[in-house]
Amino acid sequence: MDKKFVAVIGGSQCTKEETRLAEEVGRQLARRGAILVCGGLGGIMKAACKGASSEGGTTIGILPGDNRQAANPYVQIPIVTSLGEARNVIVVKSVQAVIAIGGSYGTLSEISHALKNGIPVIGLNTWSLSRNNLKDKSIIPAKSPTEAVDKALDLVTSQKSGE
Amino acid sequence: MDKKFVAVIGGSQCTKEETRLAEEVGRQLARRGAILVCGGLGGIMKAACKGASSEGGTTIGILPGDNRQAANPYVQIPIVTSLGEARNVIVVKSVQAVIAIGGSYGTLSEISHALKNGIPVIGLNTWSLSRNNLKDKSIIPAKSPTEAVDKALDLVTSQKSGE
Amino acid sequence: MDKKFVAVIGGSQCTKEETRLAEEVGRQLARRGAILVCGGLGGIMKAACKGASSEGGTTIGILPGDNRQAANPYVQIPIVTSLGEARNVIVVKSVQAVIAIGGSYGTLSEISHALKNGIPVIGLNTWSLSRNNLKDKSIIPAKSPTEAVDKALDLVTSQKSGE
Amino acid sequence: MDKKFVAVIGGSQCTKEETRLAEEVGRQLARRGAILVCGGLGGIMKAACKGASSEGGTTIGILPGDNRQAANPYVQIPIVTSLGEARNVIVVKSVQAVIAIGGSYGTLSEISHALKNGIPVIGLNTWSLSRNNLKDKSIIPAKSPTEAVDKALDLVTSQKSGE
Repeated sequence: MDKKFVAVIGGSQCTKEETRLAEEVGRQLARRGAILVCGGLGGIMKAACKGASSEGGTTIGILPGDNRQAANPYVQIPIVTSLGEARNVIVVKSVQAVIAIGGSYGTLSEISHALKNGIPVIGLNTWSLSRNNLKDKSIIPAKSPTEAVDKALDLVTSQKSGE
Repeated sequence: MDKKFVAVIGGSQCTKEETRLAEEVGRQLARRGAILVCGGLGGIMKAACKGASSEGGTTIGILPGDNRQAANPYVQIPIVTSLGEARNVIVVKSVQAVIAIGGSYGTLSEISHALKNGIPVIGLNTWSLSRNNLKDKSIIPAKSPTEAVDKALDLVTSQKSGE
Repeated sequence: MDKKFVAVIGGSQCTKEETRLAEEVGRQLARRGAILVCGGLGGIMKAACKGASSEGGTTIGILPGDNRQAANPYVQIPIVTSLGEARNVIVVKSVQAVIAIGGSYGTLSEISHALKNGIPVIGLNTWSLSRNNLKDKSIIPAKSPTEAVDKALDLVTSQKSGE
Repeated sequence: MDKKFVAVIGGSQCTKEETRLAEEVGRQLARRGAILVCGGLGGIMKAACKGASSEGGTTIGILPGDNRQAANPYVQIPIVTSLGEARNVIVVKSVQAVIAIGGSYGTLSEISHALKNGIPVIGLNTWSLSRNNLKDKSIIPAKSPTEAVDKALDLVTSQKSGE
């Protein structure tokens, strides 16, 4: 259990550029020994799993529906929840850091649940937040997959040593 | 079942001004016959339930924990979920419009789940969102409790006639 | 919050005799001021809600799906969970006693979750249990709707005084 | 994803004999290449994970609480749900066969959810069920860990070929 668990979150529909980013994030997480957790479906989730698989990494998909067949083909461990969106909470609670790439309201809900629980969120081209017109800086920006993975793994490590 | 269901969401800790807003929102919802749904705890939730109760309205609290005693004293119908934050999804899915007052990341998760499901969100001094540096205008701003309740009930009505 | 909450559980498909029992249970719960909680769908749930409604009682339906329209027409307060069967846990945790009528494996899961949480279960023509060939007597048998409601409300009262 | 996923369910408190059975079931599942899913805590869950780990198998723990540290030391992949007992639904939906050893009402809820979803349940010294005084034969009895694992894996295989 001293493995590092990192979630990659983002839309089931995404741009080509976002796909490229997610795949590279997946590859780098796997190379550095982290286990990838995601929502198990298409788009960003599939791209990240594909990248991780190509480097021999482990991929976990927390599925919203009732059917393990709905997992993308790069998910090695499908968890079947039947909980719909409530599974978003499980995705973020099961990891020590989250990398958000693009995404819509589902992704925003995962970002929120992560921040609520003190789980660090690294953002690549994703949401930014203001509250009462004050910028909220909780989402840690990254400019590249490498920077995102570096920051995520650093934050996992610092959490662990502080445990 | 032709009753209108409206959620009031916001922090379990809040400012005096937010308390005042929530109580007034609760009062007006009750006066206009809407059923109030909330997360059942303190702060904004308690203030809204207090306002609604003072006008003879019905209040429902979707509790995160295991114990109905955790509900604030103005909750008439406590729903005990034991689901932790995953109960946030139930709060918003059980209503036809959401009024967000202030709030932190838990509130933001509820806003996100609502928008994801096409449930209108009216905001009073709450989050504002940008995606990829473009402002997202999905949260409908209101300047007063009256305006918030007007907008919420209008949107419920227009949904119903479009069903 | 000093109202009594009682769940009526059983199959969404049931015999005519079971329908009659459920409707009578619903009627008696309403007459005696208890609030009826159920899974919100057809069969036993619909019959119990119909009975309770006919006596002016309050009915709550904890729905498994995404759509309030799926509630039976006698549900006054639909709670939309989108959690599938996981909503069974909410049905039993939200009450102080459970009356089980007939039922299949879904009902058995609700009986189990109730017993696990120390919530009394009254059974009318329902499951019986043995563990390692020893009869488990936790389900309290009743021979009629009146006896079931009597026993359920007695147990709610004794819990309350012991609180 | 052509791996076989099998759940081992049972109490977090159990007898020495049940511990022995669970450990042997875990060992045999691992030897035969199946991935073990369980509730992640102590008792039967820990014994099964210990057995599987000793043979180099993969173990997944679907945790009820908020804290990955609550997993037993043989869980390699902790899934943190914070859903309390509602996580029982995930344990059984994530597998293709269930082996129940001993157990109390929590285990019975998992058996029920599995049977409700057509997921085969093999029983070792566990619950037996009757409905309206008719014996329900859905739980497939086994007399030894070997027989339980044989039956479970046979049923997974026959499901797969029928897909």
